[in-house]
Amino acid sequence: MTAATSNRKIVEASFHVRFAETDMMGIVHHANYLVYFEEGRSEYSRQFGAPYADLEAMGYSLAVSEARVRFLAPAYYDHLITVRTWVEDIRSRSITFGYEVVDGTSGQVLATGQTKHICVDRSGHVRRIPKEWLKNFEVAAEG
Amino acid sequence: MTAATSNRKIVEASFHVRFAETDMMGIVHHANYLVYFEEGRSEYSRQFGAPYADLEAMGYSLAVSEARVRFLAPAYYDHLITVRTWVEDIRSRSITFGYEVVDGTSGQVLATGQTKHICVDRSGHVRRIPKEWLKNFEVAAEG
Amino acid sequence: MTAATSNRKIVEASFHVRFAETDMMGIVHHANYLVYFEEGRSEYSRQFGAPYADLEAMGYSLAVSEARVRFLAPAYYDHLITVRTWVEDIRSRSITFGYEVVDGTSGQVLATGQTKHICVDRSGHVRRIPKEWLKNFEVAAEG
Amino acid sequence: MTAATSNRKIVEASFHVRFAETDMMGIVHHANYLVYFEEGRSEYSRQFGAPYADLEAMGYSLAVSEARVRFLAPAYYDHLITVRTWVEDIRSRSITFGYEVVDGTSGQVLATGQTKHICVDRSGHVRRIPKEWLKNFEVAAEG
Repeated sequence: MTAATSNRKIVEASFHVRFAETDMMGIVHHANYLVYFEEGRSEYSRQFGAPYADLEAMGYSLAVSEARVRFLAPAYYDHLITVRTWVEDIRSRSITFGYEVVDGTSGQVLATGQTKHICVDRSGHVRRIPKEWLKNFEVAAEG
Repeated sequence: MTAATSNRKIVEASFHVRFAETDMMGIVHHANYLVYFEEGRSEYSRQFGAPYADLEAMGYSLAVSEARVRFLAPAYYDHLITVRTWVEDIRSRSITFGYEVVDGTSGQVLATGQTKHICVDRSGHVRRIPKEWLKNFEVAAEG
Repeated sequence: MTAATSNRKIVEASFHVRFAETDMMGIVHHANYLVYFEEGRSEYSRQFGAPYADLEAMGYSLAVSEARVRFLAPAYYDHLITVRTWVEDIRSRSITFGYEVVDGTSGQVLATGQTKHICVDRSGHVRRIPKEWLKNFEVAAEG
Repeated sequence: MTAATSNRKIVEASFHVRFAETDMMGIVHHANYLVYFEEGRSEYSRQFGAPYADLEAMGYSLAVSEARVRFLAPAYYDHLITVRTWVEDIRSRSITFGYEVVDGTSGQVLATGQTKHICVDRSGHVRRIPKEWLKNFEVAAEG
């Protein structure tokens, strides 16, 4: 199921491509898409009333265990782009987010991807995702 | 003359601190302030109807020749920060921008700085800043 | 087949983790692994007498079309890490590299991944990989 | 006094410019010079038997309070560059480093700069630099 046909909650974050994000090919360097995805997750958390900064403050982190990106078209300096973020899968100790990066003007999909995260405490041990956090995301994932 | 007392045009760009911009001290890594300044310049150009992307398209660049930053207080993940940008000095072949980075919530000044830029063409030769560009910035600098 | 049991050529690039590459979790931010992989490819090209900078100079680029990373253990500031890079698959218009990032001291595998690249010219059209380049990598891939 | 005529200890760190460090002007993005300087400091600490990672482990940090860079010539992808680092000034609570970034092949100076650092503990309070650290750097600064 694609983002477009899903009834899951999809959160959008929009911003301009920064000059520093380009490389000598004249386009956004591919590693920045993982940063864009991360900004998508931050926006997702903000909108669900569960800021990621709060989870960090509680002593937990969602450590990235896997990341995948498909690069479909280049992004350019100063273009307004939108990251669309949703929850693909959620379990007691892990969560998988899905993403689309879209050119805000043309609507063209520039990249898609997923990241899987494991909940860990400050000593790096795997832990259950705190209930209050989980609840928000379960509702979002079911749509 | 500080930004506060000047009658120069000051342009504001606001955005959230990204997780990737933090370092192991738990604060924004200092090199990112040069990227924040750059985003300030981009916003400045957009608001003056002279997008920097246009200057690039005309075959010119404003190569950075000097940069200074004073770091006054740390910035934290997810905080909304504002970059205030103004023109400090403008000449036929160079332009100097001034900056303040401010915590959007507390209003505390986190960093100040300047960057000086030389106009160069694609072969790297120093050139006069194109008139239509210069005009906008001269007006802005005089206030 | 893992890197360890393959008879493919494997190239190693070693460097210290930079402070700027860490994040507020106290470990290397995950997006940097794509930069580490890229540095692995650069070293691979250098050792095969086919520097990537030369391909760029000929007007070609290997645009990244897919990237995957598995994060197995965190990397820390100042640790010496080694990126092991090999060719997983090579075709007339595309090439897939495989990677392992290893802690240089403990030998622990920190991350594994693949990136797929499409050969494009300066106008973004898909092109055959130049013969002199292909030749080097075919030999390497066969082992 | 320039680095060349000083009898201060100067430490060199050499590495290839990474592709990700370039921007759409085809050269190293200027913010990366602060990262190069930092890598210069890390190498300086390693060579003086006082790894910066150790200072961090003791609960101290050298927070950057000022940074200046002059950009003299562009750096390019895959070029081997050398960062030359020395102590310009050292006091009980602060230390100032000086830098030159040099193209390893041509010997051309690409950039020069300084960074000033304040010793702080984990709660952000200004502290004296630990003696064992100070000692190493005082000897180095005097030459």
